[in-house]
Amino acid sequence: MANDWATFGADLHLELRGQGLRNGLMNALREAVRSGRLAAGVRLPSSRSLAADLGVARNTVADAYAELVAEGWLTARQGSGTRVARRSDPRPPAAPGRTTTATGAGARTTAGRPAHNLRPGTPDLASFPRAEWLKAARKALMAAPHEAFGYGDPRGRIELRTVLAEYLARARGVYARPERIVVCSGFVHGLELMGQVLRARGVREMAVESYGLDLHWDLIGRTGIRMPALPFDARGTRTEELPALGGTGAVLLTAAHQFPTGGALQPDRRAAAVDWARAAGGLILEDDYDGEFRYDRQPVGALQGLDPERVVYLGTASKSLAPGLRLAWMVLPEDLVDEVLTAKGAVDWVSSVTDQLTFAEFLGSGAYDRHVRAMRLRYRRRRDQLVAAVAARSPGTRVSGIAAGLHAVLELPEGTEDSVVRAAAYQGLALQGINRFRHPTVPRTTDALVVGYATPPDSAWSNALSALCRVLP
Amino acid sequence: MANDWATFGADLHLELRGQGLRNGLMNALREAVRSGRLAAGVRLPSSRSLAADLGVARNTVADAYAELVAEGWLTARQGSGTRVARRSDPRPPAAPGRTTTATGAGARTTAGRPAHNLRPGTPDLASFPRAEWLKAARKALMAAPHEAFGYGDPRGRIELRTVLAEYLARARGVYARPERIVVCSGFVHGLELMGQVLRARGVREMAVESYGLDLHWDLIGRTGIRMPALPFDARGTRTEELPALGGTGAVLLTAAHQFPTGGALQPDRRAAAVDWARAAGGLILEDDYDGEFRYDRQPVGALQGLDPERVVYLGTASKSLAPGLRLAWMVLPEDLVDEVLTAKGAVDWVSSVTDQLTFAEFLGSGAYDRHVRAMRLRYRRRRDQLVAAVAARSPGTRVSGIAAGLHAVLELPEGTEDSVVRAAAYQGLALQGINRFRHPTVPRTTDALVVGYATPPDSAWSNALSALCRVLP
Repeated sequence: MANDWATFGADLHLELRGQGLRNGLMNALREAVRSGRLAAGVRLPSSRSLAADLGVARNTVADAYAELVAEGWLTARQGSGTRVARRSDPRPPAAPGRTTTATGAGARTTAGRPAHNLRPGTPDLASFPRAEWLKAARKALMAAPHEAFGYGDPRGRIELRTVLAEYLARARGVYARPERIVVCSGFVHGLELMGQVLRARGVREMAVESYGLDLHWDLIGRTGIRMPALPFDARGTRTEELPALGGTGAVLLTAAHQFPTGGALQPDRRAAAVDWARAAGGLILEDDYDGEFRYDRQPVGALQGLDPERVVYLGTASKSLAPGLRLAWMVLPEDLVDEVLTAKGAVDWVSSVTDQLTFAEFLGSGAYDRHVRAMRLRYRRRRDQLVAAVAARSPGTRVSGIAAGLHAVLELPEGTEDSVVRAAAYQGLALQGINRFRHPTVPRTTDALVVGYATPPDSAWSNALSALCRVLP
Repeated sequence: MANDWATFGADLHLELRGQGLRNGLMNALREAVRSGRLAAGVRLPSSRSLAADLGVARNTVADAYAELVAEGWLTARQGSGTRVARRSDPRPPAAPGRTTTATGAGARTTAGRPAHNLRPGTPDLASFPRAEWLKAARKALMAAPHEAFGYGDPRGRIELRTVLAEYLARARGVYARPERIVVCSGFVHGLELMGQVLRARGVREMAVESYGLDLHWDLIGRTGIRMPALPFDARGTRTEELPALGGTGAVLLTAAHQFPTGGALQPDRRAAAVDWARAAGGLILEDDYDGEFRYDRQPVGALQGLDPERVVYLGTASKSLAPGLRLAWMVLPEDLVDEVLTAKGAVDWVSSVTDQLTFAEFLGSGAYDRHVRAMRLRYRRRRDQLVAAVAARSPGTRVSGIAAGLHAVLELPEGTEDSVVRAAAYQGLALQGINRFRHPTVPRTTDALVVGYATPPDSAWSNALSALCRVLP
């Protein structure tokens, strides 16, 4: 019976081919536990020895183990090593594998889910305005022309692009016209399309920030485009180094609120990015994932306003409403529209017309503005509570970054990040350290937590915050 | 001013690189007219001379011209050649470029749309059950757990996969379990995922039918997989030739209702396909696009039921409900599930959760069955009217294919197909001949029309049918 480590380990090399290493390892282990191939109680090799065995970095394995402990697949106890957890249900419904964006399950204690979740990346899903959304759906669907239900324009529905153009100009300072907007099924879809366009244009390099999501890097990397990291200092991303990178054809920036380090791109560095793009004929991809959420002042307008012919603006409803809608949008330089449409195909194969029409009505009726205002108040209150609790319970921990978005950075004493994340995992609190977002070529210089304070529903927030305070040094 | 042919024609070579030839030509011409680059009244070169100039088949150009005439971009009059049409609006909203799946606009006469549309590929969009859909949406969204609005399982929502498994077993004889189902955003998305999986498995060849959609062939072709056509005879696709093809690792079949020729795969040939798959370790991709619509008997069950470990079943709501929903599903052999999920990514980046939940409720409540029954009656009546009208008006034309689906094949006297399609286009009736669906390696042996009798709304149907009868020989 192949339910011990030895036989499974031999197959693991093969299974990891072609997948992101950490994700691949996690998926393989989850599947092995799920299927019974690794029985409950089986002891796994140490992260050091498995890493050596697989020829990957030790952190990759340690990280995967810690995640799977947090998710309930494995257990780890000092002295007894890492073991397959005992589970009541041998084949539970699969949990999303990508933990940086996993659902914000609150104070649940079912097997396979952490009791508390403060990972960044997900808004408070309990606040999704179901009744308002359904009201908009009714109005939109009853008013739609018949042809709306057919194969659609790859740009997306004109009703949505029209209201988006108005909204983005008003709320984010974007120079937006409906014919420059292309609806997509999330930022990831937009980035995928841009990767195809850049590759077709012969771009070989896209600069990225020192910290970001490996999902995005993997996506671009699959097109064969290299991704050097821009240097990073106390004031943030050093876009003035773009010319020195040489052959770079594009740069991906989270200008309004760097993810995950939490700063805003400084005015001189906004200008430097645009200057570079003009001089070098480069493109800026602006990932404006949470630009609506600023708590201490009006949000800084989008970088795109500075030069709409050099900046591709990417916005999303995933943080302001819900990721499950799969609604996002690109505002394109005029000369890119046809190339993006060529990449997307002659009709819209992806985005649901019912959601597009509903969102158009939701946006046009003012319901979206009301929802964003309400969530701004709620998230601001949570951030204030987080800052106060940390100050009271852990004077050695500093909250950094601007008062914005859905996450805060908690700077820890040197050398403590991994142990805090691991301690949290063992106590059923899902947390992520900043170093898991570090570009592979960037040296480790800081220890911090990236706390997604928007993730839990209201009912679970104060317990999650208490759990966090318990593990802070 | 570059609004004559000479300067535009010089650029056309470049613009056509990397696009499907006919679609590329059509897009380039549309864009040139839309932007004013080709002014109204400009005379285009003959299809013969442009084809020679571009180094493409003359049919490609003639086909593109006829389509654009039907869409209203160009005009064609005997003696005066093909010219850019005079249009009131210089920048109308772009029409979907892919005419085989263009929206079923009915008796509209606005510029850019044919007055009548009998192209296949779209159901009657006016029959989309909006009120029932909204009722299901309300019930589903109010009952959903919070986590449903987050980043989701790449398989799709469990609520949907559960009711789909029950429905597919009952209605289509599919061996379906929820954990083998993967929701996707249409057949095209499913085929794209399968292309990635097959390529990763090292498959170099996938056999296709002699007639089909070049969109599908292009999609698979982009992965580097070659697509030999299976021979076709009076009884349909000769699957018994699969072993003779040698290295083929997969075959794509429209078993229940061949698109577009309209027959059902014969029992001995269903068996031959499965025998081949077992003996050669091959995979069958079953495109069950309209399997619910059979008018003379109970629909034949899906091929997948014969060997669920060798057949990938692909179903869709695009024909039974509406393409705009972007809802489809694959039922996979057990050993393919992980590979498809690897191709799809660790979370669902594509399919809207609101539509998935709504469709689950719609299906589970019986509303889907009621809708399919109602549409079956409506389409059957239309098909009967088509058969009767053709018999009365054009005794030389024979309606072939089984009484099923959304299209019928009208067999024409030899050598008349192109002129009938062109004559129809000139009269504002959008029609497609069977030879536009012919695999490039298959010789032309027949003249026929592929008439999409489901496309017009009820209010436009009888006029469309009269227009059709006027152009039949």
